[in-house]
Amino acid sequence: MKNIWKQKKIKVKELPSGDTLNINVISVSGHPGPHIYLQAGIHGAEVQGNALIIQLIDFLKSYKATINGTITMVPLANPNGTNNKNNTYTNGRFNANTGDNWNRNFIDLVTLKRASFEKFCHKNKQTENKVLFTHFKKWLKQTLIKIEKELKDKNQIHENNEINLILQKLAIEADGVLDLHTGPIATYYLYTPEYAKEVSKYLKFENTLVIPHYFAGAFDEVTFHPYTELKKYFFSEFGRDLTLPFESFTLELGSEEAFDLESGKRDVARILPYLKYKGVFPSNMRIKPSPIKNQTIPLENFKTIYSKQSGLFHFDIKPGETFKKGDVIGRYFNAQKIKIKNNKIDHLGIEELKADYSGKVINIFPSAVVPQGCELLQVFKY
Amino acid sequence: MKNIWKQKKIKVKELPSGDTLNINVISVSGHPGPHIYLQAGIHGAEVQGNALIIQLIDFLKSYKATINGTITMVPLANPNGTNNKNNTYTNGRFNANTGDNWNRNFIDLVTLKRASFEKFCHKNKQTENKVLFTHFKKWLKQTLIKIEKELKDKNQIHENNEINLILQKLAIEADGVLDLHTGPIATYYLYTPEYAKEVSKYLKFENTLVIPHYFAGAFDEVTFHPYTELKKYFFSEFGRDLTLPFESFTLELGSEEAFDLESGKRDVARILPYLKYKGVFPSNMRIKPSPIKNQTIPLENFKTIYSKQSGLFHFDIKPGETFKKGDVIGRYFNAQKIKIKNNKIDHLGIEELKADYSGKVINIFPSAVVPQGCELLQVFKY
Amino acid sequence: MKNIWKQKKIKVKELPSGDTLNINVISVSGHPGPHIYLQAGIHGAEVQGNALIIQLIDFLKSYKATINGTITMVPLANPNGTNNKNNTYTNGRFNANTGDNWNRNFIDLVTLKRASFEKFCHKNKQTENKVLFTHFKKWLKQTLIKIEKELKDKNQIHENNEINLILQKLAIEADGVLDLHTGPIATYYLYTPEYAKEVSKYLKFENTLVIPHYFAGAFDEVTFHPYTELKKYFFSEFGRDLTLPFESFTLELGSEEAFDLESGKRDVARILPYLKYKGVFPSNMRIKPSPIKNQTIPLENFKTIYSKQSGLFHFDIKPGETFKKGDVIGRYFNAQKIKIKNNKIDHLGIEELKADYSGKVINIFPSAVVPQGCELLQVFKY
Amino acid sequence: MKNIWKQKKIKVKELPSGDTLNINVISVSGHPGPHIYLQAGIHGAEVQGNALIIQLIDFLKSYKATINGTITMVPLANPNGTNNKNNTYTNGRFNANTGDNWNRNFIDLVTLKRASFEKFCHKNKQTENKVLFTHFKKWLKQTLIKIEKELKDKNQIHENNEINLILQKLAIEADGVLDLHTGPIATYYLYTPEYAKEVSKYLKFENTLVIPHYFAGAFDEVTFHPYTELKKYFFSEFGRDLTLPFESFTLELGSEEAFDLESGKRDVARILPYLKYKGVFPSNMRIKPSPIKNQTIPLENFKTIYSKQSGLFHFDIKPGETFKKGDVIGRYFNAQKIKIKNNKIDHLGIEELKADYSGKVINIFPSAVVPQGCELLQVFKY
Repeated sequence: MKNIWKQKKIKVKELPSGDTLNINVISVSGHPGPHIYLQAGIHGAEVQGNALIIQLIDFLKSYKATINGTITMVPLANPNGTNNKNNTYTNGRFNANTGDNWNRNFIDLVTLKRASFEKFCHKNKQTENKVLFTHFKKWLKQTLIKIEKELKDKNQIHENNEINLILQKLAIEADGVLDLHTGPIATYYLYTPEYAKEVSKYLKFENTLVIPHYFAGAFDEVTFHPYTELKKYFFSEFGRDLTLPFESFTLELGSEEAFDLESGKRDVARILPYLKYKGVFPSNMRIKPSPIKNQTIPLENFKTIYSKQSGLFHFDIKPGETFKKGDVIGRYFNAQKIKIKNNKIDHLGIEELKADYSGKVINIFPSAVVPQGCELLQVFKY
Repeated sequence: MKNIWKQKKIKVKELPSGDTLNINVISVSGHPGPHIYLQAGIHGAEVQGNALIIQLIDFLKSYKATINGTITMVPLANPNGTNNKNNTYTNGRFNANTGDNWNRNFIDLVTLKRASFEKFCHKNKQTENKVLFTHFKKWLKQTLIKIEKELKDKNQIHENNEINLILQKLAIEADGVLDLHTGPIATYYLYTPEYAKEVSKYLKFENTLVIPHYFAGAFDEVTFHPYTELKKYFFSEFGRDLTLPFESFTLELGSEEAFDLESGKRDVARILPYLKYKGVFPSNMRIKPSPIKNQTIPLENFKTIYSKQSGLFHFDIKPGETFKKGDVIGRYFNAQKIKIKNNKIDHLGIEELKADYSGKVINIFPSAVVPQGCELLQVFKY
Repeated sequence: MKNIWKQKKIKVKELPSGDTLNINVISVSGHPGPHIYLQAGIHGAEVQGNALIIQLIDFLKSYKATINGTITMVPLANPNGTNNKNNTYTNGRFNANTGDNWNRNFIDLVTLKRASFEKFCHKNKQTENKVLFTHFKKWLKQTLIKIEKELKDKNQIHENNEINLILQKLAIEADGVLDLHTGPIATYYLYTPEYAKEVSKYLKFENTLVIPHYFAGAFDEVTFHPYTELKKYFFSEFGRDLTLPFESFTLELGSEEAFDLESGKRDVARILPYLKYKGVFPSNMRIKPSPIKNQTIPLENFKTIYSKQSGLFHFDIKPGETFKKGDVIGRYFNAQKIKIKNNKIDHLGIEELKADYSGKVINIFPSAVVPQGCELLQVFKY
Repeated sequence: MKNIWKQKKIKVKELPSGDTLNINVISVSGHPGPHIYLQAGIHGAEVQGNALIIQLIDFLKSYKATINGTITMVPLANPNGTNNKNNTYTNGRFNANTGDNWNRNFIDLVTLKRASFEKFCHKNKQTENKVLFTHFKKWLKQTLIKIEKELKDKNQIHENNEINLILQKLAIEADGVLDLHTGPIATYYLYTPEYAKEVSKYLKFENTLVIPHYFAGAFDEVTFHPYTELKKYFFSEFGRDLTLPFESFTLELGSEEAFDLESGKRDVARILPYLKYKGVFPSNMRIKPSPIKNQTIPLENFKTIYSKQSGLFHFDIKPGETFKKGDVIGRYFNAQKIKIKNNKIDHLGIEELKADYSGKVINIFPSAVVPQGCELLQVFKY
């Protein structure tokens, strides 16, 4: 038996000219098994995930054996964002028409349909795990379809939830979700929900951010949140402690606007151990051990440093590098602050930004031109 | 005694070039009395409020008597937004750097400092009204200053809350707040909190939207929310029913990108009865009765109709006009849907949008080029 | 014999997502006769021409007789521009990626292929008119195809000339070209080349701008320039004075971002006399005489008034209205210029703009927020 | 005698909010001598020149001897462009309001005032070189002031020529002009006019583009063009061959959006030999010989390769690297071209771009998201 490849073109947007934007959903299936879902570029400028997907397709194409389960891959998952060029820049983070962050308005099924969720829990409180989770996937799917119908009937489908619903439906029955992003100018890092911290180590990332189980509308959250709610409800109501067979992660693959096919091969190597762990590949498959050591940090220690000034900024420390308290992180240059007094240079217009604590730089503002109050850099605080 | 005029230039932003953006805060004071605060253009393209402010200054300049209290006026309250031109367009609704709506991230004092708030309530549970509210203003001011200091110490002042804090501080001791906005292409309408519904009738607006007392981050909300929380707490905890001496309203003065000094005079006439009601003018001051009849409607009947299609859109019903269920609201034109069959025109590419219910058009999308899912129009549903 | 309708979808752009933008070219043909070409929206926000085209299609659909010749109509001729939304604004005048005005970089065949042009003239110096112009159309077509091939071979097809070449090819054999535009906020006006001044009166426009015969890259120019060069060459070299059977006009149909189907009907009435003059309709066809009186003015009297200041601007005179020297055209408001002195209002921040000469306002800046140096208004100077 | 430092704040723009943008012009003077003018960032995102200027100031500050002449330095020479942020991107190349390239509309004195220029030449046809050039500088200055006055009187100062005139006036009496730019993502390169090819070697750049003496509106051109016209006129009319004591160069210092103070030191080392050649430093000053070898190439061999497709693009060759005919320059990825046939991967969606000739990559598109027809890369063709 061979792996079966399929593709499906889905319309995600009609343009004012009457033309349409579409996504090309690729999937490959072998023996019965887990369903892994990958998408790249919900933020339109964060395109490196596409290199991972192509190289994964290429890897699977030449993989001789039959895989277990299905891998669904959505390259360029948000053509709205990727097509939105402003001069050379890809203005892909926010919907240019509404200001909304493309990765914020996904729909939280459990909150929206709480009564139905609790009814489901009570009905299945003694159902054995495997069947329970199969039922739960069905409940998720039916609930999403119901919500979509309600929105349509009330004419409440706006520009963002149009594409959100399409992507959510594609991932609704998955057992593992990898949402491929990048930082602005960034090192590699990973977001994992707290409960999946151990599993996250199968993804070979130098830096791992552990996020709590609340819901803020991002794709990783929207996919894991029903499961963490299920776990919470079963434990608090029935005293039953479920082990969740589902995880969802946001993978930050370096810098935006960059697309490197060679890095894409290395990116595949980062996720292969996870695919093997999930059972896509047989347990005796040989994978070269990764030299990467995961470093895990709670979300509260992931700090944004806002720019106190405006001007040009020189970074003395680069993403991936560590710093100690008191180190010069970088230097502001403000042209209006060059001062001459008594015919001599009194001030060069340069001021240092020093670290208030020790840590590691994760990502930095992708332009040297920094407005006051911008997210100058994000760091792991040790 | 004469009215005393003052002005104060406040820096609200440093630009990358090192130059600064500033607001010019104008105030006029007479005898002791109420403090009324007006600001125009927190959404940078919504500039008609400036015409109201200039004409109010002109009116007060030639007003012979001494007013009671103080009126503070902030024209061009958000230079970030007003200066943000993109070709001829003023891209003033969202922060171009962060995507944030400029009128969403104001700081909710009571939620942030709940313990301190409750302590205040208990301490003052028997304080008589006048003194209570004087104390409350002090608490508001001190709390805001404290929050600002905390944000600064933690380096958490980002681009939006920089200006938010400045404007919030200017209004923190006001007895009445008028936040001057406009719709996209719109008729005149007004937002009032539920508790101020009766007072809102002193503002002569054809259409009044009654909003509930929760907090979503807008300027009107941030200013009234502490008062509604106070009222709620005193009633539920002490059984004491306070009459609030404070109101805050959002005034929608027609269409964005428009600035009409003659309309500005009429806009002043719309607010004079409120200023008189608040005591700024003596109760025997004669004001010509306004022919405008307020129509009030709950927020839940204020409906957004999202565009189901993309293309060009012809509006058959204009802002301020009413429609019946089944009426043609407008017509989509999609150039790709012009169809020719057997050498004949089969379809002109035009489709009608019909009303699902009766109502009145309040505002419409300001461009005939409509993307799928945009806010095509907002209506009062009868 | 019936009129034959045809349509043709032409791809004009591939997007980064791999999707495509297309135009839907509609044509109708009857008996042999003239070829009239209309296109709407090369500037993407100037969409009223689409209403004219739809209403013309509707008119022709119900026209019982057979027309002479062919009418080619291209609605939404530049999907690049029309789809380029920035919030609610259609950023359709300049290519967002290159800064180029979409109506400037058309290709001037005669300048580029001067030697071939002169050879053509000499070869045909005694050819009788009708045959001469038939040959000339062939020369135009072959030359354009040749240039396109050369550009492709040298890999010099950039974003703008991709669509330019497509539109130029569609119009290359036309006998009359109507390029449908609008102003920003504007009255109706028309551009005619000097030599077609008399014919232009068949287009019922209140205001007509006469432009000289040089070439600046706009679509009307690119289509008439080869003909004016031909006329010039024949006269100067052979002393033969050709009467040109071709005209091309730019029609300014009011304001950008506006689309009014009812106005579209009136817009059709403005061009019917021209279509009749060209022979599309029989000479005995009855057309209601238009009450519109053309006013003609040379290009040098069409003046741009740049904004001397920044701020908000109130227009006292609207497009279509006349003014006398010394009249107040409008008033600037600069919030920083509100001045208080000795506790009194010293300056309201308002300054008048007065007319240096008498004239008529043709179009105005479409936003009240005016940056220093912007094209504040354009006028006919009497 | 010590070097004298001065600074001058010049207002270059009034904003709609009434605030102003300014430049901070820094100069240092010693003994009488040449006037060298440097400016950075006329394209607002090209900020590395500011690092050069700061490091040059720092170098001169600690330079113990007295320099000859004056060095004028304008950091952040175009605050309009540098302040124009769109999300994190600095949209600094084109005027966001007019679409104009900020480095294109400078004023060509000789063309505009041809009669006066020729009169000047005739009057000075026998004037000895030194005096001639002193007179010529005066003519340049007076002519520019005259043109400015005429534009102002006719109300023709638009947004671009406002700042253009200011910068042109600052440089009008210079003996050497260094306009500091960067490419998008680029190696270091230099533009020199043909006549200054030999002198250009004192600027230590790996790649030098030789441009002809016509005028296209850029700052380097506007400054050297009067001199090349003078040389041309004197030679053709009087048979006198002038050696020009003036040069103007555009220096491309790497990539836009980047600001590196350490590179700034190396950038200073690149220009020191030129300053010494001009006489700013004594001829016996020791400068470490630069290891950089200038490679010179005529403008016609500087080729732009436009993108034939849309999609993501992986560059196989980086700026500064050479390639041979047939080499793979990079690879397009088009998500819609992934094709599955008979349940197998038929096409990965990847296509190669091969070189048609040998050459060196100078700069590349700064985003992996490439629209069809964009300037994908610029190369030196060998």
